Amino acid sequence: MKVKGKEYRTVWIEGNEVKLIEQRLLPHEFGFFTARDHKDIAFAIKEMVVRGAGAIGATAAYGVVLATLEAKEHNYKNYISNAAKTIQSTRPTAQNIFTGTNYILDAINNLNDLEEIRKVAISMANEFADYDAFACKKIDEYGNRLIKDGFRIGTHCNAGWLAFVDWGSALSPIFLANRTGKKVFVYVDETRPRIQGSLTAWELANENVPYVIIADNATGYYMKKKEIDMVITGADRIAANGDVANKIGTYEKAVLAKENGVPFYVAAPTTTFDLETDSGELIPIEERHEDEMLFVHGTDENGNISKVRVYPKGSKVKNPAFDITPASYITGLITEKGIIKANREEIQKMFGV
Amino acid sequence: MKVKGKEYRTVWIEGNEVKLIEQRLLPHEFGFFTARDHKDIAFAIKEMVVRGAGAIGATAAYGVVLATLEAKEHNYKNYISNAAKTIQSTRPTAQNIFTGTNYILDAINNLNDLEEIRKVAISMANEFADYDAFACKKIDEYGNRLIKDGFRIGTHCNAGWLAFVDWGSALSPIFLANRTGKKVFVYVDETRPRIQGSLTAWELANENVPYVIIADNATGYYMKKKEIDMVITGADRIAANGDVANKIGTYEKAVLAKENGVPFYVAAPTTTFDLETDSGELIPIEERHEDEMLFVHGTDENGNISKVRVYPKGSKVKNPAFDITPASYITGLITEKGIIKANREEIQKMFGV
Repeated sequence: MKVKGKEYRTVWIEGNEVKLIEQRLLPHEFGFFTARDHKDIAFAIKEMVVRGAGAIGATAAYGVVLATLEAKEHNYKNYISNAAKTIQSTRPTAQNIFTGTNYILDAINNLNDLEEIRKVAISMANEFADYDAFACKKIDEYGNRLIKDGFRIGTHCNAGWLAFVDWGSALSPIFLANRTGKKVFVYVDETRPRIQGSLTAWELANENVPYVIIADNATGYYMKKKEIDMVITGADRIAANGDVANKIGTYEKAVLAKENGVPFYVAAPTTTFDLETDSGELIPIEERHEDEMLFVHGTDENGNISKVRVYPKGSKVKNPAFDITPASYITGLITEKGIIKANREEIQKMFGV
Repeated sequence: MKVKGKEYRTVWIEGNEVKLIEQRLLPHEFGFFTARDHKDIAFAIKEMVVRGAGAIGATAAYGVVLATLEAKEHNYKNYISNAAKTIQSTRPTAQNIFTGTNYILDAINNLNDLEEIRKVAISMANEFADYDAFACKKIDEYGNRLIKDGFRIGTHCNAGWLAFVDWGSALSPIFLANRTGKKVFVYVDETRPRIQGSLTAWELANENVPYVIIADNATGYYMKKKEIDMVITGADRIAANGDVANKIGTYEKAVLAKENGVPFYVAAPTTTFDLETDSGELIPIEERHEDEMLFVHGTDENGNISKVRVYPKGSKVKNPAFDITPASYITGLITEKGIIKANREEIQKMFGV
């Protein structure tokens, strides 16, 4: 996507370095992070320098590339395998980290020449990143078919281009609808604790899509007032039965949507599906650091990046990062292969299994 | 309630001044605010120096007392009437402001001696404040009967003693249960945008009640995990049919509670009921300043009160402060006269009309 007239992806490789948009600074500053080895990649994913299903999937794939570049002749198989495990252990709920790292590992598994491994790894990582961008471009078309002129759309967290290599899942149909002249309006959930709603608002403003940020507490209020016509969210993992793991609060919005007769769609590329996990309750839920609850980040009166402690020392908090939305609450899954119902049969059919 | 060994109410009168606990500083600092005239009272209510149904009701009543002290002989009737209107116009959703001011106005309506009016006003305001504290003491007994040993209780916003003259509505049954030896645990919703969950956590810590603060997005997650046995919230206004206006997000929690089979109780004194408003959709919903969404308050690294701007300048936000929970989602209303069902018949019976 273009920022200040220049085209960017969220992640790309330059020589021996992986470059990332530094999402911890957004929406206040637009900057970059350089990962020089696979440990930097693990740090960047864990600390949410980069976040979002597709973006961390591609970043993880590039992390394996860096591991092949770091590896020495005498033990490269173990080294690369351990590096991949380090990257995979950063965020347990996110399927794309596994899809991305395994995409590279599978491709180099039978190779026995380190130089060839490096070449194949980088080629496959670029292919994986390109596929992510391609999938989002297909998702926008399918999703856009659901959006009627004048629709007011709810979303949760950020599943725009910052969450993917480019273009986004939940937001890309909205971008396309807006670019092709439909009148759309977006209710942006704040999404505590990390307030990724600010990223969504930043993206929408860049695309001139009218929006309003609301407290997570207010989504139901606007649904009940019949001011939300549909909801589209992203996904961090989709189980074989169609249950969806996504940012904490997604389940709440899905229940409220059902109660108010609002269609609730989940947009995700096939790389987010996990056919080996039978249902949502088997997906591990990441518990993140309590500091995400205790502190809020923003800018001080001089516009410098700053934070405040919201809860005094000694306060008890819990911070589950994801929840499970059962398939029964989901109107449809928007993928690069089309829109399907959130059930085992349609998912198996889509994957041809 | 006792703070650092000393007994406090949230509001009281000393000579010509009304004293308030300065709730904008909590939970970081415990301080006070002095209102010297009825305009200070209106400011304190509007800016949430004092907040919570019972607390602003009593503060509003004391505000009319200050108006009687300010009034001059030649136009005291108009002056007091206008002052009451100023106070009543601060927060349109809150029933107790009307109940409190009208309690004084009705008592002085037929009096024609300013000195007598002043005496009666102060006596009635103290009576009104005492009744609020008394009602909360009854609510705790009725509410406590619903709490089983080992219960994990959800709440939203703050309806503890800071929200009343003393002791609280939603939290007082929990205080009593804990004081009488029941094992209880409280899930405290953060309650964006004003984060009144921090007040609830502060009160619970003072009472040695174990608790955890969670993002508003996480309540459904814990309900679905069967880790919340019941919910008790307060109310800002209860319509004649049992619909409840309360802090934004209450409706969301009520829908989630119903979906998960969790009993959902609303605790409120009879002063919060508005029999003249037939149903919830007729209750006006206060829209508050966008700064409540744009900024978050807390302490800086030196422990000084501070704030950060969460959303850049130009960001669009909306900030409805309350929502309506239809009576059908409410398991029961806990009042000082007993626990009743949230319906017209039981409410009329309770009021003897």
